[in-house]
Amino acid sequence: MSDTISLPWASDFHCHLRQGDMMDTVVPMVEQGGVRTVLAMPNLTPPLTTTQMAVDYGTALQKLAPNVRFILTLYLSPDLTPDEVAKAAAAGITAVKVYPSGVTTNSDWGVLDFKVYYPTFQAMQDHNLVLCLHGECPSDASKGICILNAEERFLATLRELHEAFPKLRIVLEHATTKAAVDCVKSLGDTVACTITAHHLFITIDDWAGQPHHFCKPVAKYPSDRDALQEVVRSGHPRFFLGSDSAPHPRRAKQGERPAAGVFTTPILVPLMATLFERLGCLDKLEAFISTYGRAFYQLPAVSSSDARIVLRREALEIPESYAIGSGSAQVADVVVPFMAKQELAWQIDGF
Amino acid sequence: MSDTISLPWASDFHCHLRQGDMMDTVVPMVEQGGVRTVLAMPNLTPPLTTTQMAVDYGTALQKLAPNVRFILTLYLSPDLTPDEVAKAAAAGITAVKVYPSGVTTNSDWGVLDFKVYYPTFQAMQDHNLVLCLHGECPSDASKGICILNAEERFLATLRELHEAFPKLRIVLEHATTKAAVDCVKSLGDTVACTITAHHLFITIDDWAGQPHHFCKPVAKYPSDRDALQEVVRSGHPRFFLGSDSAPHPRRAKQGERPAAGVFTTPILVPLMATLFERLGCLDKLEAFISTYGRAFYQLPAVSSSDARIVLRREALEIPESYAIGSGSAQVADVVVPFMAKQELAWQIDGF
Repeated sequence: MSDTISLPWASDFHCHLRQGDMMDTVVPMVEQGGVRTVLAMPNLTPPLTTTQMAVDYGTALQKLAPNVRFILTLYLSPDLTPDEVAKAAAAGITAVKVYPSGVTTNSDWGVLDFKVYYPTFQAMQDHNLVLCLHGECPSDASKGICILNAEERFLATLRELHEAFPKLRIVLEHATTKAAVDCVKSLGDTVACTITAHHLFITIDDWAGQPHHFCKPVAKYPSDRDALQEVVRSGHPRFFLGSDSAPHPRRAKQGERPAAGVFTTPILVPLMATLFERLGCLDKLEAFISTYGRAFYQLPAVSSSDARIVLRREALEIPESYAIGSGSAQVADVVVPFMAKQELAWQIDGF
Repeated sequence: MSDTISLPWASDFHCHLRQGDMMDTVVPMVEQGGVRTVLAMPNLTPPLTTTQMAVDYGTALQKLAPNVRFILTLYLSPDLTPDEVAKAAAAGITAVKVYPSGVTTNSDWGVLDFKVYYPTFQAMQDHNLVLCLHGECPSDASKGICILNAEERFLATLRELHEAFPKLRIVLEHATTKAAVDCVKSLGDTVACTITAHHLFITIDDWAGQPHHFCKPVAKYPSDRDALQEVVRSGHPRFFLGSDSAPHPRRAKQGERPAAGVFTTPILVPLMATLFERLGCLDKLEAFISTYGRAFYQLPAVSSSDARIVLRREALEIPESYAIGSGSAQVADVVVPFMAKQELAWQIDGF
């Protein structure tokens, strides 16, 4: 067994980089986690609903991390007319994120009915934008829908969208169920799926009574985690890394109503290497964290002249927390990472 | 619709009355909740494994609430020999509680293998003690067992125990699934089932990100809650109230690792009345909170000369929290009740 692994800088196709002090804190950590291409989610307050807002956000992000390529997205809303889609495409915006109403952090502005957006989706298909789906139905006990089956119940909508727009590239984000994996596999080459680091590790038992592991969609049965592990182990090219790293201040995670979100940005590649080694598929790591996602997103393939990172087999103790901001007038708080105080098997040289 | 309901004082056949300051705080609240017969769980630190420990605990409880009848229990452990069972029965102890190892608060001393306890169960059957089961298998991802199916997986053990000891009265505690309801219904008259107040209200969506609603077994699918509601609405005589009220200090509920337990003791009968009215089965309330459980536990039926409580239709705002202890040197903390700050439709006259 080798004690070092050379990898391209990773690409994370789903990340929450936030605003204000939290943005200032986490954006510089993207590289620390081994990532230099990152798709930034638009669920800010207010959400990024126009081209100009997304472009301005990209400028702010770029200042904080000059080496990182930020993939920009828009938040689907009635503001996203077919004309705005054309404008977004011209401005280099890559994707549009759809949040069903009320299912996760800052989704209050989300979508209730997908059909009304078909003209927008048509324009996206025409302009080669990617549709990123938070694939959960809103919970509704009268229909038997809860956070355990919300993803599975959404899959009919995914199938419908793919059928209506077969050339539209669609990403089902952060799959958590065997049903979702099976569904994406069964669909055409324009449908892909991101998987987070944490959903490859945890099940419901790990977030029940552990708010720092609580996120939406929630981690589910062991059999679901097994299916996620199996599809990455198989090296399926339409399944790739989207961390859904979603930092919240500790006080928002440890209170009466813990916020949903798991924070993995600063440890992302060491986390993935540790897991892939445990799963016996280190040979699939590079494709999962770089090749497959870049191909689907039509980004240039990594070339032999590109900078790389070196992973070294040496225990990395994950910090208990990271300070948020610095010198701000705001009351200091911290953000707690996934697997705080636990050890990873690999670390990145130079960090 | 009448604006008052006359009811016997309720019987709660599953309650955590704790020790120390918490005991001093919650035991006087039993009556406030409309209850004068309460089965006290033995999962203290250390657990109540001998007759003498249980009797001493009963004495301490009685001092705090002279009007309440405390039903005493033992915690199943290797100390509970057939001789000790005889001694317990002679001392008026009613039941033995079984915790599978590691599934909930203070279950570290719990049972791994039921077969080794068959001589004890035989002695319990002979001495007419009741076996109370925390019906969950320990989670084991390698067997696909997690907190969502831990109860359903346990049902085979319940069937086995009932078959081996058909005359032993067994209570499956705090059922949370349709599978458990169906199983208990299918078994003989010596098998009963308690249902908590909170599991009749909530599903998984209500405890994900809400630690004050988090308990073990966890609340599950809407279809499971429907099954619980349906069996109480049907007035099945082997399903009765066991609140599993389980207070923890707020700091233990709102931290890195929230403790499992929902606190309903001081509001129990108003909560049940509000729910039963909502379910359209107020006519079944008395049987559920008194008659059925007392019959199964072979307690005297309520007679016409017994004191009663009167429920009045008047909004009861549930407090945000209750102070723990008073004048103690310990740092003050509070305990947060179920549905804190929400309103119930009924309150008990005199409280």
